[in-house]
Amino acid sequence: MKIITCIAPVNIATIKYWGKRDTELILPLNDSISVTLSTDQMHSKTTVAIDPDFKSDRMWLNGKEQSVDNPRFAQCLKEIRRRVQDKHGDIADWKFHICSENNFPTAAGLASSAAGYACLVYALAKVSGISEVRDVSLVARRGSGSACRSVWGGFVRWQAGVRPDGADSLAEQLYPAEHWPPVRVLVLVVSDSKKKIGSTSGMQESVKTSKLLAHRVERVLPDRIANMIEAIGRKDFATFADLTMQDSNQFHAVCLDTYPPIVYMNEVSHAIVDFVHKYNQLANQVKVAYTFDAGPNACLFVLEPDVADVIAHLRHLFPPTEHSAANYVRGIPVVQHVQLHKDIQPLGTPYEKGQLKYIIHTKVGDGPRVLTDDNEHLLTPDGLPKCFI
Amino acid sequence: MKIITCIAPVNIATIKYWGKRDTELILPLNDSISVTLSTDQMHSKTTVAIDPDFKSDRMWLNGKEQSVDNPRFAQCLKEIRRRVQDKHGDIADWKFHICSENNFPTAAGLASSAAGYACLVYALAKVSGISEVRDVSLVARRGSGSACRSVWGGFVRWQAGVRPDGADSLAEQLYPAEHWPPVRVLVLVVSDSKKKIGSTSGMQESVKTSKLLAHRVERVLPDRIANMIEAIGRKDFATFADLTMQDSNQFHAVCLDTYPPIVYMNEVSHAIVDFVHKYNQLANQVKVAYTFDAGPNACLFVLEPDVADVIAHLRHLFPPTEHSAANYVRGIPVVQHVQLHKDIQPLGTPYEKGQLKYIIHTKVGDGPRVLTDDNEHLLTPDGLPKCFI
Repeated sequence: MKIITCIAPVNIATIKYWGKRDTELILPLNDSISVTLSTDQMHSKTTVAIDPDFKSDRMWLNGKEQSVDNPRFAQCLKEIRRRVQDKHGDIADWKFHICSENNFPTAAGLASSAAGYACLVYALAKVSGISEVRDVSLVARRGSGSACRSVWGGFVRWQAGVRPDGADSLAEQLYPAEHWPPVRVLVLVVSDSKKKIGSTSGMQESVKTSKLLAHRVERVLPDRIANMIEAIGRKDFATFADLTMQDSNQFHAVCLDTYPPIVYMNEVSHAIVDFVHKYNQLANQVKVAYTFDAGPNACLFVLEPDVADVIAHLRHLFPPTEHSAANYVRGIPVVQHVQLHKDIQPLGTPYEKGQLKYIIHTKVGDGPRVLTDDNEHLLTPDGLPKCFI
Repeated sequence: MKIITCIAPVNIATIKYWGKRDTELILPLNDSISVTLSTDQMHSKTTVAIDPDFKSDRMWLNGKEQSVDNPRFAQCLKEIRRRVQDKHGDIADWKFHICSENNFPTAAGLASSAAGYACLVYALAKVSGISEVRDVSLVARRGSGSACRSVWGGFVRWQAGVRPDGADSLAEQLYPAEHWPPVRVLVLVVSDSKKKIGSTSGMQESVKTSKLLAHRVERVLPDRIANMIEAIGRKDFATFADLTMQDSNQFHAVCLDTYPPIVYMNEVSHAIVDFVHKYNQLANQVKVAYTFDAGPNACLFVLEPDVADVIAHLRHLFPPTEHSAANYVRGIPVVQHVQLHKDIQPLGTPYEKGQLKYIIHTKVGDGPRVLTDDNEHLLTPDGLPKCFI
């Protein structure tokens, strides 16, 4: 038996992916750009074992056995086996046992599928002797489009590509995490009960009905992507922030232009937007940027020297409940003491407690990696989940 | 002294006006289409008196004297005087006393400036012997863009025009109110406390910063306007409704694409959108359309046979408080008894009481008119507001 355990990061798009030109192959309409978050705070973890004696492929996710017939999951296995066949024909017929979990609550609604599929495919590739990140990205894309970006650390671009077979639709690293060390990310987990339309069907509806999406893809994004890459290159936070916020807004505008309209942000989300613009105005400088994916939670980008101040003002405006106060800020510790801005009134009056559930403080990080400690395996030497023992 | 009293209607755009090509002359980027609401439920009322002995122009609005230096107000007076000069030079130097009021709460946030300026200019024109509706529309536009549409009843188009001086930017009637008698309008007044950006500055920000507005104006609206006119012409409610909802959504999408983003709809607004789509789905037919202007209130279009049923379901989903229950539906009486849909569950669980403050039930109506009863005058024979006596 061969066994391996890997972790893979979450990524946050600063230029959004919304709309496929091929739903089967998961080929996007446009390039997207993302920031990979440190696995120290959030990651998916996957153990893969292969053994000539395994009778069938099996898969456990967060402790529960899953069907291996899920088409996207099956597609990833098939694509890996095809590549193994080319290189190490002997193990191509061996079956996989796979066990996965996330270390962050799915309630955070944070692209868990991107981290999950990136981790799955990375682990499958490693255990099968496939070493090209290029291959990992191409296969991960078949699991979940944005997963192809989570195979790289730092600042990443998913090239839409032009080939009908998708062979050129994969992610590349623009800059490693070390390129811009002070960039910090605050994940703001917002209280929400409503069930939202999933991103897969949401983007299909947008492609079918929005009169603005094609214009965004053809006329707005080419310049915006070039400008974003340049801004990251020269570490120009204000431009990076403006482009990130504008693209988040435009993605949600396209959702609203979809028919029937798709609404992912709620009033707390919009209050966070408002806070960021007012905070930047008070500072007379763009110090914070927001971005929202297919849900109400915000990701804020902040430079390290400003983190404590931003968190203090968030805590003022979106106070925790008594119950959540001790655990309001998670992740990288913030020890610096700050005072609230003297003229805090323009930020508005504080919202009722608990609208913002908690904040995860993290930073830009590296791509997936293999864990070398055997104690990390999620499967026993028999190839069964440890949590079952 | 000459004295006259007029009333003028509110209009609701089904193809929205958003963005000026000339802010001074109030020339829009695009044609817009509106429905004029009956003055029976909602109107502005204005009395204008002219007298050679009046020392200066004076103006009272909702009981309070206003400065006549307001540039838009001053522009309307100037434009009327210019036309009087051409026709009846003798009274061009006489001063105006003007008294105005709305019979609907400004809290309704319902284009009170459109009805107000249409009424003002209509009354100024009547008292000055100007009879062309064309002139009234051109001058009312200088007060508030959408006011140029309130000078006509029924279904109205504001032609953007092409002339730099704006002489061809005015409203025309597409069809009179009698063209499509069963069309009913429900104005849904939503509870809201937030101060929103005004439409004048909002649209200027959109023109400056939205990457989608120009595309909307140049590529989306020409077809949409032609289709809307045809749908009204053949009384095709489903097409009228779809286009109305799509255009409302796109207007709010452009607001969201503005930087910083502009948000007029709140969670109750979005819940109403959701209700309409689910109601139509349950009915397996497009029976209701929504449209939202620069605020959270909805206007619903419904055909007369469906009004009672729609209101019953609105009352179920957005229940009034004990205090507001008796006055929840205002305007045209609804006596028909209806039962809630058997399978009401898809509409979702009712919201907390009082999220929808009340509903004004009205219909399509005629343009401004002169009131012939002298008791209606808001000014005394001395030219002073009656409410001051």
